Amino acid sequence: MILPALPTPMDASGRPDWGAYQAVMDRLAEHVDGFLIYGSNGEAPLLFPKERREGLSRLKPPKPFLVGVGDESLPQALFHQEAARDAGAFAGLAYLPRFFFAALDEAAALRYFEALARVHPVFVYHVPSLTRTDLPLPWVRRLSELSGVEGIKDSSGEIARFAYYQAERLPLRVFTGSAVVFLASLLHGAEGGILAAANLVPALIQRIYAAYREGRLEEAVALQNRLDPLARTLGAGGVVLLKQAMRHLGFPVGSPRAPLPEESPFWPRFLPLLEALREEGLTA
Amino acid sequence: MILPALPTPMDASGRPDWGAYQAVMDRLAEHVDGFLIYGSNGEAPLLFPKERREGLSRLKPPKPFLVGVGDESLPQALFHQEAARDAGAFAGLAYLPRFFFAALDEAAALRYFEALARVHPVFVYHVPSLTRTDLPLPWVRRLSELSGVEGIKDSSGEIARFAYYQAERLPLRVFTGSAVVFLASLLHGAEGGILAAANLVPALIQRIYAAYREGRLEEAVALQNRLDPLARTLGAGGVVLLKQAMRHLGFPVGSPRAPLPEESPFWPRFLPLLEALREEGLTA
Amino acid sequence: MILPALPTPMDASGRPDWGAYQAVMDRLAEHVDGFLIYGSNGEAPLLFPKERREGLSRLKPPKPFLVGVGDESLPQALFHQEAARDAGAFAGLAYLPRFFFAALDEAAALRYFEALARVHPVFVYHVPSLTRTDLPLPWVRRLSELSGVEGIKDSSGEIARFAYYQAERLPLRVFTGSAVVFLASLLHGAEGGILAAANLVPALIQRIYAAYREGRLEEAVALQNRLDPLARTLGAGGVVLLKQAMRHLGFPVGSPRAPLPEESPFWPRFLPLLEALREEGLTA
Amino acid sequence: MILPALPTPMDASGRPDWGAYQAVMDRLAEHVDGFLIYGSNGEAPLLFPKERREGLSRLKPPKPFLVGVGDESLPQALFHQEAARDAGAFAGLAYLPRFFFAALDEAAALRYFEALARVHPVFVYHVPSLTRTDLPLPWVRRLSELSGVEGIKDSSGEIARFAYYQAERLPLRVFTGSAVVFLASLLHGAEGGILAAANLVPALIQRIYAAYREGRLEEAVALQNRLDPLARTLGAGGVVLLKQAMRHLGFPVGSPRAPLPEESPFWPRFLPLLEALREEGLTA
Repeated sequence: MILPALPTPMDASGRPDWGAYQAVMDRLAEHVDGFLIYGSNGEAPLLFPKERREGLSRLKPPKPFLVGVGDESLPQALFHQEAARDAGAFAGLAYLPRFFFAALDEAAALRYFEALARVHPVFVYHVPSLTRTDLPLPWVRRLSELSGVEGIKDSSGEIARFAYYQAERLPLRVFTGSAVVFLASLLHGAEGGILAAANLVPALIQRIYAAYREGRLEEAVALQNRLDPLARTLGAGGVVLLKQAMRHLGFPVGSPRAPLPEESPFWPRFLPLLEALREEGLTA
Repeated sequence: MILPALPTPMDASGRPDWGAYQAVMDRLAEHVDGFLIYGSNGEAPLLFPKERREGLSRLKPPKPFLVGVGDESLPQALFHQEAARDAGAFAGLAYLPRFFFAALDEAAALRYFEALARVHPVFVYHVPSLTRTDLPLPWVRRLSELSGVEGIKDSSGEIARFAYYQAERLPLRVFTGSAVVFLASLLHGAEGGILAAANLVPALIQRIYAAYREGRLEEAVALQNRLDPLARTLGAGGVVLLKQAMRHLGFPVGSPRAPLPEESPFWPRFLPLLEALREEGLTA
Repeated sequence: MILPALPTPMDASGRPDWGAYQAVMDRLAEHVDGFLIYGSNGEAPLLFPKERREGLSRLKPPKPFLVGVGDESLPQALFHQEAARDAGAFAGLAYLPRFFFAALDEAAALRYFEALARVHPVFVYHVPSLTRTDLPLPWVRRLSELSGVEGIKDSSGEIARFAYYQAERLPLRVFTGSAVVFLASLLHGAEGGILAAANLVPALIQRIYAAYREGRLEEAVALQNRLDPLARTLGAGGVVLLKQAMRHLGFPVGSPRAPLPEESPFWPRFLPLLEALREEGLTA
Repeated sequence: MILPALPTPMDASGRPDWGAYQAVMDRLAEHVDGFLIYGSNGEAPLLFPKERREGLSRLKPPKPFLVGVGDESLPQALFHQEAARDAGAFAGLAYLPRFFFAALDEAAALRYFEALARVHPVFVYHVPSLTRTDLPLPWVRRLSELSGVEGIKDSSGEIARFAYYQAERLPLRVFTGSAVVFLASLLHGAEGGILAAANLVPALIQRIYAAYREGRLEEAVALQNRLDPLARTLGAGGVVLLKQAMRHLGFPVGSPRAPLPEESPFWPRFLPLLEALREEGLTA
């Protein structure tokens, strides 16, 4: 199951452009199995709560979707989780509060996810490169036992974590957020990826997935190697590079919110990688 | 100049209690020179933007005050900065966006602070233990040259940074946010402290300040040593411990927002330190 | 190709016991394809240079072997590299100097490995959990182009690094030092593992290897999952746990050098994992 | 009390030059109160044990001296500690083992320092920028209670640590290894500095010390500000820059051991700072 982690299109004045957002989803729909709205690459923490709620009330995702709902406290996360439920998301996706992470213990993590799960199903989100916090594996085990905690998106790229989820048979649907280790994540039990790269080269990622599922391992490895340089550079360039690349492909996504730059220092290295895959018909 | 970094009192349902907030300020006013509203210890990132704005419209600080305005993007920070200006703050206090910090460069930092300073004076906020980001000294130098960037609150506790601000004669008002190095910060040019501990033992901190200003260095050191264990433990316990200690002193501050715990694991160690200073009449 | 990262047996007075070392190698030989002498788990940095040289002059490894030669400067590393050559190692294994790592740049890394490779073939060693330094991927690419730099042992556990080595077709023999991601490393081009766990459960690791090579992927994954808890705990417990476990299996390895403890806090958790595999005949 | 952390002069073939070493000490002697031999800036970990021992047998330090004795295990550190005792050092200076630091607990730290102190007095060495390990404050407290553990050299630059040593009245002689916070360390109880900068500008550092001791605080601050840019750059440039600067001043120190570079990228920034102080007669 491949879901793009969608960017939030902005208009020239820096406001979310919901019409453009709908157009992006509609164009991607045929290539993917669903969407992540308001993930990291959706600039979720850069939006006002009421913007996030307004968007959910206006968008009509043509496929199943997750919604990012994590925030710095439970009241904030519940606000988003209720909106996700009302909009028809199959689950909310939440990281733990980051600012006062040091004051949290396992019991606090359980309180937080239990309260969210009471509203609607929830996935745990682990993205240490952005949150700069750890999510200890024993906490994941305890969270996995909560009713309503249905899955995890793990963007750490640490295959040892996926091996743990699989070896310990945690009752979680597991998704990777790191395209560079997409295939290795599948090997260790992931059911798919929620990926920024799926906005750009969904067909290539689908081929890796299909080759793996159908037992053509060598082909899967070769395709993963094909994806590698683009995925690696996109991981380094983040949302600035993602939006620039999508604009290049004709998606009306605009720029990230200030003070983020409009153009990425990784673009000169990225463009030829993207163009090579476009020539092969692998871009969206 | 001693300013307490005020907590945001919450009622039993977890909503900001502005009446209690006013009472806290009024009780502290005689001991301090001003206030910081919505700093880290004010749980600023745990509040909804409209809560922060509503509070500013209702509070009547009896002394000069700063308001925390930093956020994850410029539009959000501007929203807070405008409210700070309208409420009569002498400046906003802003850290850089944290979530996409890796996508920021010096130019982005300048854009952000320049835009804020166009609205109202601004202080730079550096609190790496919470933001988990660095603020390179060369950036501070460039920021100090912007019109309207008037000061810095540096909570790193790194005296080498204060020595730099002083040796390089940066045109900034410098405040420390770390009570453990309060005296050493004064030595290296700080004009005061914006401190969580100033909610609890403002008289002790004022005495350190006075002894230093009046050339009684040995006394200042002895008083700083007196403050040390309490300040050190408060630094480790954070807002959870601060609110618990203020409740103990009769301040109507309530608990931090969920999922933060109500009680701190540091409390048993902290209580005797606080009581010893209370017996000497050094608490608020 | 499976090589155990051998511990260095010590006698009761804390001196290397070369007779015991020979016995350990001889007992393991039938299960493995070679050996690593003086790796991290060999307590290499805890030995005097002349001890390391003396051991090489006395040991008769019954299989091909690598020798750890990395040190804090080139003269020291060359001393070890010459001894490794003279002893008949197929290559030396070297990390970069750690103490003054911040003073090294890519050119320094090239100087160091070029000088070592002039003496004898060399493998690059990356073990960030112990050296607490990074080895940037572009440096590995440049090192791979040096004549005589023949391979890499990467103990980072980061599969993204293996994917890079493979996708970029670096002319290096690649080995993983992390048993938890052994299978995923094979998927991304590793030709084997140089593993502490291969001292304990070589048969299990050989089975994973064989299943993978022979296209029985599901079986390989199931076996890797079987290995997971033991490998994970061994990674956390390090050489203290390794020696304790080997003593339990009857290997005359003694204790790690003081001030390391004789017994590991992980032992109570580890023992049942080890016993379960012993009952299945998977231990050495 | 000001001690330079001496570099270890090397001849053109990269071997220690004990005659040059003696000359360096003799030239510095009039400006300083003693010496540190084989500290970090002495490239101690880059020397063979027998080189370190040979040097101690040949050098005749004209002032009291400390000797760095820390290493990766107790037998190695004891080897150095015995040599330090035999050479007449007033104490050895030891950090904890770094490579297997994760396997150490407080009890292991106590074992290590207790065994060293049984041979000769010992100072604890904390230099996290190079060892990349922490030394928890509660461990320092316990170590300070051991008979024969007489002092600490703390190069962290964290004044909060010095404040702790002072406020808790630890029975330790305290020295700072960070020139940038030299004055602030004195304020919080340090009795002096063991400083790389004391090889270059001992007179300036002595003046800071004297001004502080004699109660001329403003002058002390002004002099510390004068020292700041040079000390800050030297901290960044490390031993490569130190040796380059000493060569510039005519000290026969040679280059650092390969693969460290001979010249520092910080030299162009450093030279004018050094020259300015030389013109004022503040260099050695």
